Amino acid sequence: MAENMFLYWGSGSVPCWKAMIALEEKGFSGYKNKLISFDNNEMKGEDVLKLNPRGEVPTFTDGDVVVNESGAICEYLESTYKDKGTQLIPSGTKQRALVLQRMNEAVANLMHKMLLDYLYEFMETKEEDMNPDTLARKTQTLKDELNRWNDYLGQTGAYLTGPDFTMADVYFFPFIGFGVRLGLNLNSFPNIKSYYERLSSRPSIKATWPPHWKESPGSFKPLTGKM
Amino acid sequence: MAENMFLYWGSGSVPCWKAMIALEEKGFSGYKNKLISFDNNEMKGEDVLKLNPRGEVPTFTDGDVVVNESGAICEYLESTYKDKGTQLIPSGTKQRALVLQRMNEAVANLMHKMLLDYLYEFMETKEEDMNPDTLARKTQTLKDELNRWNDYLGQTGAYLTGPDFTMADVYFFPFIGFGVRLGLNLNSFPNIKSYYERLSSRPSIKATWPPHWKESPGSFKPLTGKM
Repeated sequence: MAENMFLYWGSGSVPCWKAMIALEEKGFSGYKNKLISFDNNEMKGEDVLKLNPRGEVPTFTDGDVVVNESGAICEYLESTYKDKGTQLIPSGTKQRALVLQRMNEAVANLMHKMLLDYLYEFMETKEEDMNPDTLARKTQTLKDELNRWNDYLGQTGAYLTGPDFTMADVYFFPFIGFGVRLGLNLNSFPNIKSYYERLSSRPSIKATWPPHWKESPGSFKPLTGKM
Repeated sequence: MAENMFLYWGSGSVPCWKAMIALEEKGFSGYKNKLISFDNNEMKGEDVLKLNPRGEVPTFTDGDVVVNESGAICEYLESTYKDKGTQLIPSGTKQRALVLQRMNEAVANLMHKMLLDYLYEFMETKEEDMNPDTLARKTQTLKDELNRWNDYLGQTGAYLTGPDFTMADVYFFPFIGFGVRLGLNLNSFPNIKSYYERLSSRPSIKATWPPHWKESPGSFKPLTGKM
C-alpha cells in the first residue's frame, strides 16, 4: 500500500512532521515522497499546486485520493487503515473522547500560544527590542499552557492520554520538538521533558526527525533559562 | 440518549454553534443545556470549570463522558453514534478524504483570515484609524480565501463537498453566519451567498441560530460594500 502513497513535505514543518509520524505508525514506511525546499518556495511549484491549490505542505496522495491538511491526512490514514499498524484513535467511547479532545486542544492552543505568537516573534525580533509587558504576558500565557500539558502527563503517565501512544501524541509531540529546536527550556516542565526524551527514540519519531535539524544546531536560542 | 447529554454554550460563538448543529443533525434535539453569558464571564463559573479547566464553551458531557473543544464534540458524536441521524463523515474513501480536508481547511484558514485577523480587528478599531496598507492586505487575503470557498461550492453544488450535507458544512457554515452578522457582504461570492441563504432554513441551523441575533441587529457593519 505504501507504494501507492506520495507525500510532499518540508523539513522542520510541524504539520509535515505530524503527518509523517502518522504514516510511520500506521506501517507505511517507504512511501514515495519529495522533500521540498521552503527557501526556494517549492511548495508553490507546479507539482504541488496541481494537487493542492493552496501551495502548502503536507500534500498527500494515496492512489487517486488526494488529501491535504495535516489533520485530514492523519484522520484519513486512521479511518481508512483502521486495522493496520498502531490504532491511533481508540474504540472505547471514553478514551476516544479524550484523544479527540487533546488533538483539538493541541491545535487550538499550541499553534498560537507557542508558535505564532511566541516563538516566531522571537525569530523576527530581538528580545531587547520587545515591549517588556507584551513579552511578560506572552511568556506567562505559554508557561500556563505548558503547565497544563505537564499536568496532563502527570495524570496519564507514559503518553498524553494513558498507557498507549495515540493520535493525541501524534498531534502534540511535533510542537514540543519544534519548541525545543527553537530553544524552549523544558526544565520547569519535568513531565514534558521526560516525555520528550522518551519519545525522541520512538521509531516513528526517530525516522521522521527533521533531517536538517540533525545536520545543524538550532540557530535560535531565545528562551534558554527563561521558563 | 439526548437526555443524558448536557451542553454549556454561549450565544453567537462559532465553536458552540458548530457543536450545536452537529447535535441537531445527529438527532439529539432536546439535550439538556445551559446558555452562559460571555458578558458575565460565566464560562469561568465553577460548573464549567470542573468539567473544562480552560473555562471555555462549548463544554459537553454525554453521561459520564466529558468532551470539550468543538471539533472533538463533533467527531465524538459522529464516531459514537454513526448510524443515528445524518451521516456526517462519509464511508467512501475518496469522499471521506475530501470532507476531512475541508473540515481542517475551514478551521486552519477561516478562524484567522476571517475572524481573528479581520473581523475582530474591525470590532476594536475604526476603519479610518487602520493602517491603509494593512487593511488592503488583510482585505485581499480574506477575499482570496472566500473566492476559494466560492469556487469549491461552484464545483460541488448543493453542499461544500457534494450533494450531501456533511461535517464540512457543520464546520464551515458558522464562520459564514458569523461573518454576515458582522457585516460581511456576500454579493461578490454568489455561490456562498446562495448556500448561506439556503442553509439558513435548514432545520439544524434554524434551531441553533444564535438567539440574541434574532433579537437585535448586528451592531458592526464594517464591511458593507467592501468586498
